[in-house]
Amino acid sequence: MSHLRPALLTDHYELTMVSAALRDGTADRRCTFEVFSRRLPTGRRYGVVAGTGRLIDVIKDFRFTPEEVEFLLRTGVVDEPAARWLADYRFTGDIDGYAEGELFFPGSPILTVSGGFAECVVLETLVLSVLNHDCAVAAAAARMVTAARGRALIEMGSRRAHEEAAVAAARAAYLAGFRFTSNLAAGQRYGIPTAGTAAHAFTLLHDDERTAFASQVATLGRDTTLLVDTYDISQGIRTAIEVAGPQLRAVRIDSGDLAVIAQQSRELLDSLGATETKIIVSGDLDEYAIAALAAEPVDMYGAGTAVVTGSGAPTASLVYKLVEVDGRPVVKRSENKGTIGGRKVAVRRHKPTGTATEEVVVSQGVPDRQANDRLLQHSFVVDGEPVALPSIAESREHLRQCLISIPWEGLKLSAGDPAIPVTVVPAG
Amino acid sequence: MSHLRPALLTDHYELTMVSAALRDGTADRRCTFEVFSRRLPTGRRYGVVAGTGRLIDVIKDFRFTPEEVEFLLRTGVVDEPAARWLADYRFTGDIDGYAEGELFFPGSPILTVSGGFAECVVLETLVLSVLNHDCAVAAAAARMVTAARGRALIEMGSRRAHEEAAVAAARAAYLAGFRFTSNLAAGQRYGIPTAGTAAHAFTLLHDDERTAFASQVATLGRDTTLLVDTYDISQGIRTAIEVAGPQLRAVRIDSGDLAVIAQQSRELLDSLGATETKIIVSGDLDEYAIAALAAEPVDMYGAGTAVVTGSGAPTASLVYKLVEVDGRPVVKRSENKGTIGGRKVAVRRHKPTGTATEEVVVSQGVPDRQANDRLLQHSFVVDGEPVALPSIAESREHLRQCLISIPWEGLKLSAGDPAIPVTVVPAG
Repeated sequence: MSHLRPALLTDHYELTMVSAALRDGTADRRCTFEVFSRRLPTGRRYGVVAGTGRLIDVIKDFRFTPEEVEFLLRTGVVDEPAARWLADYRFTGDIDGYAEGELFFPGSPILTVSGGFAECVVLETLVLSVLNHDCAVAAAAARMVTAARGRALIEMGSRRAHEEAAVAAARAAYLAGFRFTSNLAAGQRYGIPTAGTAAHAFTLLHDDERTAFASQVATLGRDTTLLVDTYDISQGIRTAIEVAGPQLRAVRIDSGDLAVIAQQSRELLDSLGATETKIIVSGDLDEYAIAALAAEPVDMYGAGTAVVTGSGAPTASLVYKLVEVDGRPVVKRSENKGTIGGRKVAVRRHKPTGTATEEVVVSQGVPDRQANDRLLQHSFVVDGEPVALPSIAESREHLRQCLISIPWEGLKLSAGDPAIPVTVVPAG
Repeated sequence: MSHLRPALLTDHYELTMVSAALRDGTADRRCTFEVFSRRLPTGRRYGVVAGTGRLIDVIKDFRFTPEEVEFLLRTGVVDEPAARWLADYRFTGDIDGYAEGELFFPGSPILTVSGGFAECVVLETLVLSVLNHDCAVAAAAARMVTAARGRALIEMGSRRAHEEAAVAAARAAYLAGFRFTSNLAAGQRYGIPTAGTAAHAFTLLHDDERTAFASQVATLGRDTTLLVDTYDISQGIRTAIEVAGPQLRAVRIDSGDLAVIAQQSRELLDSLGATETKIIVSGDLDEYAIAALAAEPVDMYGAGTAVVTGSGAPTASLVYKLVEVDGRPVVKRSENKGTIGGRKVAVRRHKPTGTATEEVVVSQGVPDRQANDRLLQHSFVVDGEPVALPSIAESREHLRQCLISIPWEGLKLSAGDPAIPVTVVPAG
């Protein structure tokens, strides 16, 4: 449980709209809202759906407490009829969408919320907050996992993100293929493996590095990671092996020219007989820095700031748009944004080899099914009742399979077009 | 209360260090940790301290519940002695720092935490998460406030940030001078004025724009803002004034070339006799877009994504470093990062006119006081007990005064050096 009360994690205007719609009789019109992005961050080839599981969990608890209703009345946000409606609020509609770990592209309808206007519109802010954040982190993390080419990654960016965003970021990074997180709340809430041993402060606390290492090994055993760059790295490595022996599990290096230092450290460790001791590197690593270390003797990467801030794209630009009212497609028209109204059904089309070729999204209809199509939307909530969702481990495996399925250009880190096109077909 | 239980918003390694330090007898060594940044985001002239009030509030509740301790033991994060220590944990040390709303520069010691090693080190992640996030938002928001030249700003970026980060962002933006937020939880928790009226969905829900406007005015009165860009903006404005009369408070425009449209809209409103009706613009505004609208007839700006994501700098790069152990200055030496150990005292120096000239930071000593110096550090927690802090309104006014005091180049949006230099004087 991360939220005491989620209902006020909401924009003021959602509730003024509820007030007005209750008054004019439109509050219960059957509506469909869709979540999609008009574009990916510049040069990115794919987006990654993440946060849905977290979102559905919070929507279960989306109720307005008496104190919250009183606050909204007192501050004039809502009138009396709306206050009574909010006091009884419980989402009774349906939510469908792309599975966590699914890829998405511009125009993919990754979440569809349907029900009465008022009950759906109050969820807008929360839906977008959760998905915009978690999808942004997952997309950056997935690129880092690709760049790491099978080497393990640990997410250690909690300190560079809002304290609760950090927990969600750890979850999204794990979903994207990271092996560990430093964040303990993510371990407790989601069962994600946590890791960590010591900071420079621990070495500085002691009278010398040897004493600090000896203390750490006495408490944690040789199956630990010693941080060797507080003073001189070569001396740090020698001291680490003297103290722990060549069975030491790993050394971590957090500063300097990591390519050069990784090489030197490997040679030094081997010369000391510590041929099995791993090398973990960290320090402002993003997907490009990770890729640049591919040829170096690195065993694990620690990524912090870049992963929790989406590596240059801290939000996924997802919007929550009303697309259908009482069966009638609707769309904002003042700008030609190419948006098509109507509830959509989406499939991903594949070659017989399994390689994805395009996504076909049909408004108010169903795509012609072809042999290797995959339906992309699943039920998450039916008549207000959540449906069992995949585990994080399953979502993680799903993403791994999805990334295998896209054309190989789609995995390049360099800027380019989306990995596959999305064809949106208007209602016919 | 935003956190049920803050203690696990913490990196794994903080607790393994506690285990090892308890075992080797160093856990109670008197330590000082300082929070500072080595650099500002590229080209920025100043940082803004924000989040301290939020942080001190959470530290009051920083206790480990029996379930949390059990989780940490079961997963092997801590051993039995550390588990017993955590179960009794309560911070008993001191926290000093720069006031919220104060400016900071590379090397400014914005927060100082002192006490036993273990009790201070467990706060590292939480301290940095809160300050890195809130300072990043406040700095971006302050630049937008400067760019707006006295025009009002509303923060409406909740949907583009993690749902709890959004509440903190609303607080930081208000502290930086924004007038409103869309975030209701920020209104309830912090008393920040909230605002908002209707989204495009409200217009699309109705059979036509006129019906939607009439409904909104019937519920909210003429003292409301009509969103006029769902279909044709000129027609939207005509309809708005027909429905609400020339006493309509404001129209909002969320798309298109805002400079051109603001001009045309002002002329149209004036021609309809709605000379007092305000124009609010929004749509991916950052400080540069706001500055570019300075000559246009805009009355209020709505800022979203850019403010909540720090406008290109989503984290403030603050670090939490051990600088003193039992009175001895300590510093990591493997890289020459120019860091100086020892607990620091900071003053800001000013000309007799009140213009700031430099910040002087002295390690293990006190700066020579000059006539127009201002001491920058205040007590926030003494022997574990929080001290009364300034209100958000006071912090907001403090920032306003600080921004007046820096040399005028410091307020330029263009890239450049920090507004004033920081001189760090080693212990001597």
